Amino acid sequence: MPSPIPADSVGLVTPQSQLFDRPLTLASGRQLDSYELVYETYGQLNSDRSNAILVCHALSGDHHAAGYHGAEDSKPGWWNLYIGPGKPIDTNRFFVVSLNNLGGCAGSTGPRSINPATGEAWGAGFPTLRVRDWVHSQARLMDTLGIGRLAAVIGGSLGGMQALRWALEYPDRVAHCIAIASAMKLSAQNLAFNEVSRRAITSDPGFSGGDYLGQQTLPRDGLALARMIGHITYLSHDLMGEKFGRELRSGSFALGQDSDIEFQVQSYLRYQGERFSTSFDANTYILMTRALDYFDLAREYGDNPVEAFHHARCKFLVVSFSTDWRFPPLRSREIVDALLAARRGVSYAEIDSNLGHDAFLLPNQRYQQLLANYMNNIHVELQGGPG
Amino acid sequence: MPSPIPADSVGLVTPQSQLFDRPLTLASGRQLDSYELVYETYGQLNSDRSNAILVCHALSGDHHAAGYHGAEDSKPGWWNLYIGPGKPIDTNRFFVVSLNNLGGCAGSTGPRSINPATGEAWGAGFPTLRVRDWVHSQARLMDTLGIGRLAAVIGGSLGGMQALRWALEYPDRVAHCIAIASAMKLSAQNLAFNEVSRRAITSDPGFSGGDYLGQQTLPRDGLALARMIGHITYLSHDLMGEKFGRELRSGSFALGQDSDIEFQVQSYLRYQGERFSTSFDANTYILMTRALDYFDLAREYGDNPVEAFHHARCKFLVVSFSTDWRFPPLRSREIVDALLAARRGVSYAEIDSNLGHDAFLLPNQRYQQLLANYMNNIHVELQGGPG
Repeated sequence: MPSPIPADSVGLVTPQSQLFDRPLTLASGRQLDSYELVYETYGQLNSDRSNAILVCHALSGDHHAAGYHGAEDSKPGWWNLYIGPGKPIDTNRFFVVSLNNLGGCAGSTGPRSINPATGEAWGAGFPTLRVRDWVHSQARLMDTLGIGRLAAVIGGSLGGMQALRWALEYPDRVAHCIAIASAMKLSAQNLAFNEVSRRAITSDPGFSGGDYLGQQTLPRDGLALARMIGHITYLSHDLMGEKFGRELRSGSFALGQDSDIEFQVQSYLRYQGERFSTSFDANTYILMTRALDYFDLAREYGDNPVEAFHHARCKFLVVSFSTDWRFPPLRSREIVDALLAARRGVSYAEIDSNLGHDAFLLPNQRYQQLLANYMNNIHVELQGGPG
Repeated sequence: MPSPIPADSVGLVTPQSQLFDRPLTLASGRQLDSYELVYETYGQLNSDRSNAILVCHALSGDHHAAGYHGAEDSKPGWWNLYIGPGKPIDTNRFFVVSLNNLGGCAGSTGPRSINPATGEAWGAGFPTLRVRDWVHSQARLMDTLGIGRLAAVIGGSLGGMQALRWALEYPDRVAHCIAIASAMKLSAQNLAFNEVSRRAITSDPGFSGGDYLGQQTLPRDGLALARMIGHITYLSHDLMGEKFGRELRSGSFALGQDSDIEFQVQSYLRYQGERFSTSFDANTYILMTRALDYFDLAREYGDNPVEAFHHARCKFLVVSFSTDWRFPPLRSREIVDALLAARRGVSYAEIDSNLGHDAFLLPNQRYQQLLANYMNNIHVELQGGPG
C-alpha cells in the first residue's frame, strides 16, 4: 500500500460477509439451503438509499474491487483505477457494492465450501450456476443492505452479462445498466477456448475428478494451462507484439547452439499460469466458464434480443474496445442495435485501445472520461447518510 | 478410394524411402550420422530434369500429399485438391516431390526412430531442428533424384517458411518460390500459442519427460489439448460460427436441468484432439513447433529482410487469406514489401476466404485459378521422360 494513501483511494477496506439461510432455487432446479456472500462497500449510502452501485466481477475476479486490505498489500483491488473519490465511479457520490459471486473461491459459498449434507467440501458436486443465479443472489444481498433500487449495475466481460441480466430480471430495481466489453452470448470460438481450458483442468490427474480437496491433490498444471490460454485471448495480438516481441529470456539463436531458447512471452505466460494455479480454485474456474458458455440473453425471449430488451426499463451504456477479439466491438454493437430497435435509451462508445479484452481493467483516458461523464450524469441526492 | 479413380487424381501412389549415410551437420551444431527420408512423387521427371516441384509440408503434414495408398483409403493425401492431372500443380507437366521432413513421425527419421548410439528410440533426445536443416536435407534428396534445379518450391504455413529459406540457401537451385499463408517469423501471439501447446504435452504425466516410448506411456491428453488449441487458431472466428454456432450436441437449456450441456463445437474439437493424439508423435509435435518458433528469415542478415532477399534469385508468389489470423495477410505483405524493396519479381494475392488459416488446404475457386495460372506460366520442356 502506498503511504500516504492517495487522496483518490478508498483506502483500507474490510470485507464483510452475509449469511442467507432462506433456500435459493437455482436455474438448474437444484436448491442451495443456505449460502454466504462476501462483499465490500465503498462510499456512503445516502438517506433515500438511491445512490447504490453494484459492481459485478468477471471470470477470475472477486469482491476486492478497490482499496487495500492492509498496509502490507502491494496491489489494490482489481478496479481500483475506476472506483474511488473523484474517480469515474466516484465514491464521494456513490455507495459501491462489490461481491464475490456464489460459486467463487474468495470467500463466498462455492466448491471449496462445506456441503452441509455431507460434511465435506462440495468440490465438483457444487451446483451448476447460470448468470441469472448470480443476479438473484445479488438482489438478495441488496435486500439485506436495504437497497431497493440500484443507481447502476456495472460490469465488464462476464460482469457485463450480469448487468444485462439484471436489467431484464429486475427492471424496477435498476436505473442504469453499464455493460463493458461484453456480449449477449459467446461465439463458437469463445466456447471452444473455454472447452480447451476446462479440458486442460479435468485431464490433469491432480484434478481427481473434481475431488482434489478430498484427495489432497491439485490440478496445478491444468489450471496454469487454462490461465495461459485465457491470458492469450485477453491480450491483443499487437499488444503482445509490443510488450514481448521475440525477445529472448534465455538461450541463444547463434548457430551451433542447441540450448533451449526461451522467449520472454513464454516465461511471462508460464509465470501468470503458475501464480494463478496456486491461488484460484479449479472447480470454480469450471463453474464460471460454464456460466459464460450457457449465458444467452435472449434465449427465453424467443431468441429475439429486441423482445428481451422490451422488458428492460433502465438506461444503458455499452462500451467496447477496438482490439478486443474475445468480445469484439461487433458483439457490443449487437446489444446496441437490439436496444435501439426496442427503443431503449442507450449510449455506446467504441474505445480505441491496443490493450485487447483486458482494456476494461486498464488505464485509458478516453474510457475514464467517458465513464466519469456518464456516472456524473446519474442524478443522486447527496445530503446526509442513511442514519 | 473412389472407384473408378477420378481422371484428375494421381491415383495409387507408393511411398519411397531414401537412406542418407553421409553425416548431416545441423544448425544446432549436432550431427546426424545417417537418416532416412520417406517421400512420394507424382508425374514424370522430364528429360532435362527441369520440371521438378518440391512440396513442403506444414506442422502436422507428411509426404502423402496426393492420391491414395490403397483401395481401402477413405481419404486422399492432404493437398490432393491442388496436385494432379489438370490441377493447379499439374502432374501432366510437373514432377512433384513431397517428403516427410526429418524429425517427422510418418516414416522419416525422427524421435520415434532408433538412435544407433543407444539402440533405443531417440525420443526427446532427438536433435532440435531449424527450418534450414529441413531445407538442407531436402536438397540432398533432390541430389539423389538427380534434380539440380527446382522449377518451384512450394508450401503453406511452416511449408512456406521452408520455401522462403530455399530461396536464400540455394538461390541457384530454385526458379520459383511459392509461400502461402506464411510469415518471415512468428508473432508473440503465435509463440504464446505454441508454448501453451507444448506445455500441455510436457505436463501430461504420460509424456514421461519425452521417454513415453521407453516407459510405455502416452501423453494422449496433452497431445489432444495441443491439437485442440491449434485447431481453434487454424479456423476463422466466422467459420466456427457458421459451422457450429451454439448448436447443442447433448443436454438441454431448459430451466430445471442440470445436465452437462455440450455444444457441437466442443465435441468436434474433442474428436479432432483425440484422433490426433493416437496418430501423431508428441516429440515430433514439440520439435515442429520449436522450428516454427525459431524461424526468423532475416536474423542472420542483420534482421533486414531486404538484405536477406538480395540473396534470392528466383521469382516469388506470395498468397494470403483474408480471415487467417494465425498468419494474417499483414505477414505476407511484409514479405512482399521486402521483396519489392530488394527488386525481386513477386506476385501477391490476398484471397477472400472465410476459412481462416486452413484455407490453404481447402477448396477456393479464386485460389485454385490463381495457383493454376502461376504454375502454367512456369515454362518447362515436356518432350520425353528422363530415360
